[in-house]
Amino acid sequence: MFYYLFDFLDREYDLIGAGVFQYLSFRAGMAVIVSLLITIAFGKRIINYLHRQQVGETVRDLGLKGQMEKSGTPTMGGLIIIAAILVPTILFAKLNNIYVQLLIVSVVWMGLVGFVDDYIKVFKKNKAGLKGRFKIGGQIGLGLIVGITLYSHPDVLVRVFDAPLSVEQEENIDATYKDAKSTRTTIPFVKNNDFDYKVLVSWLDRDLTWLVYILVVILAIMTVSNGANITDGIDGLAAGTSAIIALALGIFAYLSSNMIWSEYLNIMYLPSSEELVIFCTALVGAAIGFLWYNSFPAQVFMGDTGSLTLGAVIAVLALALRKELLIPVLCGIFILENVSVVMQVFYFKYTRKKYGEGRRIFKMAPLHHHYQMEGYHESKIATRFWLIGVLLAVFSLATLKLR
Amino acid sequence: MFYYLFDFLDREYDLIGAGVFQYLSFRAGMAVIVSLLITIAFGKRIINYLHRQQVGETVRDLGLKGQMEKSGTPTMGGLIIIAAILVPTILFAKLNNIYVQLLIVSVVWMGLVGFVDDYIKVFKKNKAGLKGRFKIGGQIGLGLIVGITLYSHPDVLVRVFDAPLSVEQEENIDATYKDAKSTRTTIPFVKNNDFDYKVLVSWLDRDLTWLVYILVVILAIMTVSNGANITDGIDGLAAGTSAIIALALGIFAYLSSNMIWSEYLNIMYLPSSEELVIFCTALVGAAIGFLWYNSFPAQVFMGDTGSLTLGAVIAVLALALRKELLIPVLCGIFILENVSVVMQVFYFKYTRKKYGEGRRIFKMAPLHHHYQMEGYHESKIATRFWLIGVLLAVFSLATLKLR
Repeated sequence: MFYYLFDFLDREYDLIGAGVFQYLSFRAGMAVIVSLLITIAFGKRIINYLHRQQVGETVRDLGLKGQMEKSGTPTMGGLIIIAAILVPTILFAKLNNIYVQLLIVSVVWMGLVGFVDDYIKVFKKNKAGLKGRFKIGGQIGLGLIVGITLYSHPDVLVRVFDAPLSVEQEENIDATYKDAKSTRTTIPFVKNNDFDYKVLVSWLDRDLTWLVYILVVILAIMTVSNGANITDGIDGLAAGTSAIIALALGIFAYLSSNMIWSEYLNIMYLPSSEELVIFCTALVGAAIGFLWYNSFPAQVFMGDTGSLTLGAVIAVLALALRKELLIPVLCGIFILENVSVVMQVFYFKYTRKKYGEGRRIFKMAPLHHHYQMEGYHESKIATRFWLIGVLLAVFSLATLKLR
Repeated sequence: MFYYLFDFLDREYDLIGAGVFQYLSFRAGMAVIVSLLITIAFGKRIINYLHRQQVGETVRDLGLKGQMEKSGTPTMGGLIIIAAILVPTILFAKLNNIYVQLLIVSVVWMGLVGFVDDYIKVFKKNKAGLKGRFKIGGQIGLGLIVGITLYSHPDVLVRVFDAPLSVEQEENIDATYKDAKSTRTTIPFVKNNDFDYKVLVSWLDRDLTWLVYILVVILAIMTVSNGANITDGIDGLAAGTSAIIALALGIFAYLSSNMIWSEYLNIMYLPSSEELVIFCTALVGAAIGFLWYNSFPAQVFMGDTGSLTLGAVIAVLALALRKELLIPVLCGIFILENVSVVMQVFYFKYTRKKYGEGRRIFKMAPLHHHYQMEGYHESKIATRFWLIGVLLAVFSLATLKLR
């Protein structure tokens, strides 16, 4: 929003300093500052307000040490996260950019789904929340919107070069390239880091690439969104993990929107994806700022409002940047937590059928509760998961090409 | 070490896979894996050993909550960090590289100073440890070694280009450049990010640049080494902050040793500095691995063995990469802790002189104890300091050029 205003002031009235809005770095810096201000400076007030409204989580007694002390901690802190993502994005990103539009829609959509869920939990004292069916419906709906948009929108393009670029050429771009619609994506360890979904359906008579792609999108959104949701069971765990992933995605966005670097790293130049850098910096600021209050001992929980939204947004970002095949590595913590629940439930049902009594793989699922049962301090578990998250993020970035 | 062995096997016997040691990314990956193995896999055993030897810290009672519970936690965990830095560096870096040699000397030198200090503290039960004079002597000694080496060694060079490079040119380097001795360093916010210490003494008849430079080196090493030492007062604080800084320095090392990227970012191409990437990845692995056990509630402390060494090594790295003027930002947490102590002591003495009774600015110095006195949980203080550390690291990287 400010971009247009200051751009206008710069062009029409030659306002001193207004031209600085042309710089991506300036806008990215402002985005992170504003999102930190919203979370850290206003966070305290919002937390107090939520507290007064008694938007406290009624904690389900799992027999974990120190767990019942958490009763009364305000939830729905996800609202802080959503505000801290949306406000800087709307202020500093170009709103006619398809990627920005898509991300804003994702935040609002999943935010609403999560909010309704939290609302029922808190005010109806109905801990089951939305029936799983509604949550999954929301995720599939978002998957359809995102999948169809990325597949068919004329602005979602990949730049194809005829020859390598020099440093000079980047300044005056009349090099030999064309921007094309494509279903290519980035995959590490293969030649040119390149993979086209087309290949999967090339043996069919009709071109069903769109179907494959949309299924991939729905799967990605469901996995990461539910993963973040499940991970959010220990102070600071989901927020910290999301901050790490968001930072890595921000680096990907920056590299993908830079012609020289994307070329050098073989990760595809994505025209107009630089606006995603603004979104990512807002997201990083929101997650870090929220962690300020959410780290052990937590003064606020994000609730489904936060976790479903963060997960979905991370998935959509990865898809927009064509890095969705890196999700199993980059979002490894979310996936691991997801898998631990599936394994536990599956094994329990299997053994109950076979031996008459259900057995367990983990002392408790999801995985972080298993370690809590083993006697590890909540704070130590969160820190260790973060450290693994950092290693996974560095590894995802390094897979592409380090030389 | 392995580099030469496998290089030899590759050339002479054409051993399959040996050539992979030519790749910086492979060696960097191995370095981080080995340092994580040493810290995480062997860490438990070393901690148990230290525990048996009763190398426990006798905690000075500061009247802080939960503080006395820490009595008996083994210290000298810095030995784990030192091993986890040295072993991978010796295995995977080129040992004839001047930067690698300098860093190994720094680790051993400050490690010894810190170890003697810890040893006296633990076994002589003499909490004052080495007289401050010995500690400072050790830092000045290291400063002289590092300063003289970086100033005068013929391999410490900066590459000067006549014209910008293209992507192709990097592959077959016969471009127009020369490698020159230089006292230039990187400074943000000025044209070309360039600053020459020569300028400071250009008004003198004799060229005293060497003196200025060596003083800068000593100051940098003393500040950061003491800063890390002071910061190490809360579980995981110094280790986490160091890990963040080391990661940022690793990125700087990678960018500075890459001709295209250093050119693009205007941060000087430093020939043969790519070996510092190996050292940095070992350092990151060591810090992260140590944090695995050192995060709240800590199973081991690093002691002066760890903190003096980490601080000194970070300073030397920054100097070698010619980013020492970024230390006030990048190592902001260390500086802040340092400053809080200086302010507290100065103000106390000043008011005692003026009003007859000493007054305090902080409830307790260094700063992290102030927040502890204010009632914040140790774990929350550490996490918040890390978050600030992350923002400072990102900001240091971003100051250079984001477009």
